[in-house]
Amino acid sequence: MSFIKKLEKRMDKVNSLLCVGLDPVIEKIPDKFKNDQDPIFSFNKWIINQTHEYVCSYKPNSAFYESSGAIGIESLKKTCDYLYKNHSDIPIILDAKRGDIGHTNKEYAKYIFEYLKADAVTLQPYLGSEALSEFFKYKDKGLIILCRTSNPGAGEFQDLMVNSIPLWQKVAQEVSKNWQKQTKTDLLLVIGATYLEELKKIRELAPNTTFLVPGVGSQGGSLEKTLRFGCKKDGKGVVINSSREIIYAQNPNKAIKEMWKSQLKYD
Amino acid sequence: MSFIKKLEKRMDKVNSLLCVGLDPVIEKIPDKFKNDQDPIFSFNKWIINQTHEYVCSYKPNSAFYESSGAIGIESLKKTCDYLYKNHSDIPIILDAKRGDIGHTNKEYAKYIFEYLKADAVTLQPYLGSEALSEFFKYKDKGLIILCRTSNPGAGEFQDLMVNSIPLWQKVAQEVSKNWQKQTKTDLLLVIGATYLEELKKIRELAPNTTFLVPGVGSQGGSLEKTLRFGCKKDGKGVVINSSREIIYAQNPNKAIKEMWKSQLKYD
Repeated sequence: MSFIKKLEKRMDKVNSLLCVGLDPVIEKIPDKFKNDQDPIFSFNKWIINQTHEYVCSYKPNSAFYESSGAIGIESLKKTCDYLYKNHSDIPIILDAKRGDIGHTNKEYAKYIFEYLKADAVTLQPYLGSEALSEFFKYKDKGLIILCRTSNPGAGEFQDLMVNSIPLWQKVAQEVSKNWQKQTKTDLLLVIGATYLEELKKIRELAPNTTFLVPGVGSQGGSLEKTLRFGCKKDGKGVVINSSREIIYAQNPNKAIKEMWKSQLKYD
Repeated sequence: MSFIKKLEKRMDKVNSLLCVGLDPVIEKIPDKFKNDQDPIFSFNKWIINQTHEYVCSYKPNSAFYESSGAIGIESLKKTCDYLYKNHSDIPIILDAKRGDIGHTNKEYAKYIFEYLKADAVTLQPYLGSEALSEFFKYKDKGLIILCRTSNPGAGEFQDLMVNSIPLWQKVAQEVSKNWQKQTKTDLLLVIGATYLEELKKIRELAPNTTFLVPGVGSQGGSLEKTLRFGCKKDGKGVVINSSREIIYAQNPNKAIKEMWKSQLKYD
């Protein structure tokens, strides 16, 4: 099954466009996990158990595991295996923001799609589509290209005007039109919830493309407006990620349920 | 000691601008290593022993280790530790092409500078300088920003015109002027040896910046022209990387020595 099909099937099943970012920092996880053999994996399992009924996907960010070296990569692998075994209908997005030349991307794709068995990955656009050909070979995966990132300084290069449109719009056009024609792999775009005007515009430019939208919650993005400006006509088309606001909540189950209820209200 | 000081000291000591890319693929390494406990580490040690007299730095690419998962990260860690212990004057450049928002880059920086203890890292420009602030905090490290990559399709976005200059020139200007003013960390640029006109132009735009130049050898770049167009007036200013041509040579010692001799001839 293609990534978008798997994702939308899950969206329909639980009536949710929400994604939980599994980005654990050892200093911030509850004390009760700290003496476990693999505290990060124990914490992730707990978060998954608390939240899975309300999510359309999980998004571990590779950086938060790499910082502990080989042990961290093992925690990430165990987390992906746990999801794969217990919740095989919930797609895993690996947030890795990779991007190298073809020869090297082949190795990254092995890490992400063969070792971790993730369903989708975030990628950098700077080297162009030719560099991503090794990723395009994985026909049932999702490739999520950075377009407008959620950070305050995103505009430094992304807002530069190229042929009278900003670079982020050029990326949106190329990916959703030309790249998508070249490949049968599902292509998505990253648009930060912190840039609502841009989100509105990208929905016009790419009416059928699904967006990964980080930045709701801790970074300040609005859930209501993300839904209003980001959704496709069928009410899907956005994967709204929240990480810190959910995983470090006193009660992650309550936190995701509240967010899910708000989402239903605005939907 | 700052990264550039360490690098130039090593360049002077061995009279070399050459860097060997430690990018091992298990299927391609000599059979004699395949039954070792950690074949990749054994192979890397052998390559280092065969080549260290002729190099100013080593550049492992994280992708080639990640593809084997946690075990691969262990091989990479052992390789970095081996270099650190036996050749502490040779800087390690981790080719990782990372780039995320600040909060996440903090974790990548931990992986690269604290866990692996690398001296420098390659980074993506797309999210702008604000996103890289966590990397800028490591004052003695080198941050090598992608400017003009070596792949055939590099121009797709990098050649787009912004205010009458191509995007790659804009990146070169911003990094070498504005970013370098903002931070005391050494900033370098990646320029592929496969784009000689661009290399020439970037040397004019950034006369004092050091370039990491991949693409000599297997990718078709010319060593002579890279030296002619890329060097600073003091004869330094470029780190010329070769990977496959050296590490898979019948005799890596002979291969690097030949390359070193050519470099002296053209220098």
